[in-house]
This record gives sequence, C-alpha cells and structure tokens, in this order.
Amino acid sequence: MLLKDYKFGIIGLGIMGGSIARAIRGNIFSEPNSHGRIYALDVKKDSLSQALNQGVIDRGFLPEQTKSMLCECDFVFICLYPHATVEFLENYHSDFKKDAIVTDISGVKNLLEEKLPEIVPENTDFILGHPMAGGEKEGFSHSDGNYFKNHNYILLPKPYNKPENLELMRQLVIAMGFSRITETDSETHDYKIAFTSQLCHVIASAMVESADDPSITQFAGGSFDDFTRIAMINAPLWTELFLANKEKLLLHINNFQKTLSEFEECIRNDDKEKLQGLLEDVRIKRMLMK
Amino acid sequence: MLLKDYKFGIIGLGIMGGSIARAIRGNIFSEPNSHGRIYALDVKKDSLSQALNQGVIDRGFLPEQTKSMLCECDFVFICLYPHATVEFLENYHSDFKKDAIVTDISGVKNLLEEKLPEIVPENTDFILGHPMAGGEKEGFSHSDGNYFKNHNYILLPKPYNKPENLELMRQLVIAMGFSRITETDSETHDYKIAFTSQLCHVIASAMVESADDPSITQFAGGSFDDFTRIAMINAPLWTELFLANKEKLLLHINNFQKTLSEFEECIRNDDKEKLQGLLEDVRIKRMLMK
Repeated sequence: MLLKDYKFGIIGLGIMGGSIARAIRGNIFSEPNSHGRIYALDVKKDSLSQALNQGVIDRGFLPEQTKSMLCECDFVFICLYPHATVEFLENYHSDFKKDAIVTDISGVKNLLEEKLPEIVPENTDFILGHPMAGGEKEGFSHSDGNYFKNHNYILLPKPYNKPENLELMRQLVIAMGFSRITETDSETHDYKIAFTSQLCHVIASAMVESADDPSITQFAGGSFDDFTRIAMINAPLWTELFLANKEKLLLHINNFQKTLSEFEECIRNDDKEKLQGLLEDVRIKRMLMK
Repeated sequence: MLLKDYKFGIIGLGIMGGSIARAIRGNIFSEPNSHGRIYALDVKKDSLSQALNQGVIDRGFLPEQTKSMLCECDFVFICLYPHATVEFLENYHSDFKKDAIVTDISGVKNLLEEKLPEIVPENTDFILGHPMAGGEKEGFSHSDGNYFKNHNYILLPKPYNKPENLELMRQLVIAMGFSRITETDSETHDYKIAFTSQLCHVIASAMVESADDPSITQFAGGSFDDFTRIAMINAPLWTELFLANKEKLLLHINNFQKTLSEFEECIRNDDKEKLQGLLEDVRIKRMLMK
C-alpha cells in the first residue's frame, strides 16, 4: 500500500495535528487516485467540525470514540502534550490496528523512554519523532499546510523499528514539507533541544519579564522583535517541557549564565580587547552553524 | 528650497550611509524636476566608485577632501561609529556650510552629549538622531534603499534646534521608509537602547558562545535562528557601543540575570504553578508591547 492510500489518524487536532492533517491532504492525497483518509480525534467538537467542513479530515472522533477510531488507522500521529502522550499510550496501548505505524510529536523524550516497555502500542511499530516547528499561535484554526516548510524533523529510530517503516516515515516527513531529517537517540535529543529550543524560550521569557516599560518597542530595532517573539509562549505546554527536561535545561541555563557573566565582566572592566575578541569569535561560530 | 533640491553629504558610505544615500535617491530625488545632489565621503575608494557607477552618489570624496565637501552640503549625515563621530565633529566643527542641517546616526548618545558644546558644528543646526536599523551585513555593497522599511527612527530634539529643521528631518525620515519616529532625550535613549538593542546582542552572543556543538542547528526550530542571528555582530562597532553605554547596559544585564535566576529556581524546585504563571504573564506582557 502507498502512503496516498493510508488511513491516517491524528490524535489531537491543534495547530500541530491540524497542520499535519493539512500537509498530508495537500501533499500526499493530492496524488492521482488517492484512496487515503484522515481521521482525527479531539476534545473540541468545534475543531472537528471546522476540519470536516474545510475538507481537511474525513471523520472526526471524540475521546469516547477513541477505540473505534484507532482500530481502523494505518498510521497514527499522537499530537498531544508530553504527559498526555504517555497517558494516551498507557490507556490505549492494546487498541491500535495490527501493524499500524504510530508516532508522536513530543518535544521531550525522556518521559516516553522511561515507560517505553509499558506504552509501546501492541503489534504496532512505534516511531519516536519530533517535528521542530512551532510558534506563538495555537489551535486548529491557526493550522497551516505550509507550516513545516524549511523546518527540521528529528527521528529517534529504535532497534525494534522496521527499516521499511522508518523509510516510509522519512518519505512522509519530506513530503509534508520538512527540509531536513536529523536522526539521533532520545538522550541526545533532549540534551540538544534543551539548548536550541528550551533555553531560547527561557531567555526570551526572562528578557520580556525584565522589561520595565510596556512601550519599550518604540525603541526597538527588528532584533528585539525577533528576539522576544518566542516569549509569546503556550504556558501549560512549555511548563511541561521545561520541567520534564529539567536536568538538562538547568545545565544549559548554568552554562549560559557563566558565559553571560564573562561578557558582563569584560564590559565592567572596560576590557575592550577581550570583548572584541569574544564578539569576533561568536560571529564566526554563528556563521559556521549550518 | 525643497528636500529634492538639497545637496546631501554622507560621511561614511557603509551599509548605513549607503542605504541612506539610496533611500534619498530613490524616494526624494525621484520627484519631478529634482536638482538634488548626493556627495559622499569615505576612506574606501572602492565604495565611492561603486556608488558613483551605480548612480547612487554624484561625487565621491576622500578624507583629505573633507573640507571642500562640507562647505557645499546643505544636509549632512554623519554615518560613522560613535567615537569617530565625536572625532569628526571635533576636527571639522568650523567647516560646515552656513545654516546646514547636520545629523548623526550614533547608537549611543552620551559620548556626544558630554562634548556637545565643543562639537556642535558652527552656524549649523545639529540634530541628534538614531535610525534603528541594522543587521549582520556590513559595507556599501550590502546597502539597500529599502533597508529602513518598518523600522523606527529616534530623534533627540534640542531646544536649540529650529522647529522647521526638525520638521524637515521628520519628513525626510518618513520619506526614507521609516515607519515610526520616537522623540526623546539622550539619557532616555541610552537607557532604552541598552535594553532593546544592546542587551539582546549581549545575550544572543553569550548564547552562541555557550553552544558546545557547531552542528547544533540540526536540532533547531526557527526560534534558534531568529534568536541568534544578531550574534553575527560587527565586533568593533558593538564593542564601542557596549562600552560607551556601560553603566546602563550593566544595569539591564543585572536585572535580566535576576529574572533568569527566578525562572531557574522555579524549574529547579519543580514549581509548576509559579512557572506557568510567569510564562502566562510574559505572554500577555509581550503581546501588549506595541
């Protein structure tokens, strides 16, 4: 069977689940003679009706209908917050279709890793994944089929994953618009994400919190806006992410604090030479980051 | 005389001076029957030839020809680094054309304020200003007539400035593409800029410096790129800006460090409620920043 004929299941039709549904509809089912279907489950009836009316999904399910949906889906995206993902897998681990591919989008992986033996859905191939896209918007109404353009997808293959399913997953991810796939393990994932994503969000939030003037943007160049845009954070989700990855995040916060103090010291001591050297290093380091 | 008939002088034809020249050429001299001229002074012959060949300027001058240029210009933009701006005004303060409007673009104002009585060019109207635009690119070859679109211009009017000249300056700034003019004094400017601009640059630089992996962007969502783009800094310029505004910048760094420690503590103590509350506050605070 080809991807265009799969029955996809989306658990959680927020901005991520909705954008995944749209990307599949637009980029996979657009092939000729597609018999594919998209089913979606959400607590919000409104999101389901909206998605049905817009032709994004073929059927909507409410939580009490979870089992009747799962037993039909060939490829399931669990698009829930990290703890809810674990809980969902605990509750329904024996209710998936045989040989289904099941994947998650959780931004931190140790919660899943810790419970993996208990939560891997029976008779399925469970692939851990993380689409590195996000923003200040939330909810299905902000979902967008082009949401993933130029973004990274992280895959965390396990020895138990079937090579052909991993290959299918890669094909799907690229078809959805992601530009690069990075493959790693959960430990590395959580360590790197704590830096590139969580630390940025903590810093941007602390920056905004430390502002003493609500009309400060009168004095802002473009950099301030870019810099603090991500402070418009989904608070419950990011609280979960920060706390679930606490140990690694604290490590990066502390490293950052030390480096910041080094800059501060140069400035306090009028150490022009050292400061300029640091800034020159940083420029080159950032330019080499690809 | 109308702006389209002014003889403009640009001191320093880098990315800022070049973009100002292009914006004047494109948006002011494009009016019918313009008799305006743009003269530019730079140490780099190449930049001057390039600008002449592209029709951006009408005449190029080298430093030894400064006086012969200044005596002709009705409106002079000094587009030099802060210390060089002060030095230029010290050296040439009696060489400007009578009744010329003279303005600077320096990102920190206390250096100029301290010496103001000595450096205000004789028989001219000297208006302090700061176009809030910038980026990781440098030099005339990266200048762009649309560089200022959607950016703020800060004006720092003095009691001695003629109202009609301030009004002309405002017209010019808007015609160059800036979307908003903020008017304030130098003390306020330096305090606000230390936060919106300098602190962002210090933090982004410390963030990049603290990265332990050059291929970290494999794990980056869009936020890391936005966040650290400004770390590709012009090291000599920003070293000057940081040190010239040291006192106010250190104040903001310390405030930020305290706020960051507050976030850190919530995370360390698993204080879910307080962390989520902080993030919710920050989201609202940022959304209200206009």
